[in-house]
Amino acid sequence: MDPDSLAKAFVEHYYKMFDSNRAGLGNLYQESSMLTFEGAKIQGSLAIVEKLASLPFQQCLHNISTVDCQPSGPGGGMLVFVSGSLQLSGEQHALKFSQMFHLMPTPQGSFYVLNDIFRLNYA
Amino acid sequence: MDPDSLAKAFVEHYYKMFDSNRAGLGNLYQESSMLTFEGAKIQGSLAIVEKLASLPFQQCLHNISTVDCQPSGPGGGMLVFVSGSLQLSGEQHALKFSQMFHLMPTPQGSFYVLNDIFRLNYA
Repeated sequence: MDPDSLAKAFVEHYYKMFDSNRAGLGNLYQESSMLTFEGAKIQGSLAIVEKLASLPFQQCLHNISTVDCQPSGPGGGMLVFVSGSLQLSGEQHALKFSQMFHLMPTPQGSFYVLNDIFRLNYA
Repeated sequence: MDPDSLAKAFVEHYYKMFDSNRAGLGNLYQESSMLTFEGAKIQGSLAIVEKLASLPFQQCLHNISTVDCQPSGPGGGMLVFVSGSLQLSGEQHALKFSQMFHLMPTPQGSFYVLNDIFRLNYA
């Protein structure tokens, strides 16, 4: 699978999981993983899933606008840069967001999220 | 200098240079560097500076809203994620943008930009 297709497949999987079963996202992170969510820094898959599960909304729907990717260097990693909007249940207007992921290969031939930075784009 | 201060210093330097002497940005990239600008992929410092110099505006002013950073792994790199707005000369409204940089250390103790992804955030 070429890098662009891989990035798109990851992004679709990630947000589908986020919108249907947020706790399941823990499998995508490891102990070294970092999330910066609206400026708050969290490390480790358990703490990251706790943070995501504790966000003050239950139902949401991500709509993806753009996905860009680049190889991140000799380690075989991949940078994925996403823009889109987030519709919260009961809210009239969707929130625009940008998010970047740094995916690193696992020995099993898959990828995990080493870096994750999320920001809402306030209008 | 701690990573957050370093990231902020880089971001201030980058956009000050962009707004005053775009051609000078070439020193921040190397031959392996990649830029994805609104979906267009460009590789190498010369091609990147050509692209930035050819953008259809002369004067601009970046205003930075947020800067987030994380270490990118064992290679000593740093991921910098920026949101802000871009005021073009003669335009009434500023354009919102998000941009990420992957900075890698040089043998001289400085950093260069290995990865650069830029997107406007359309309202």
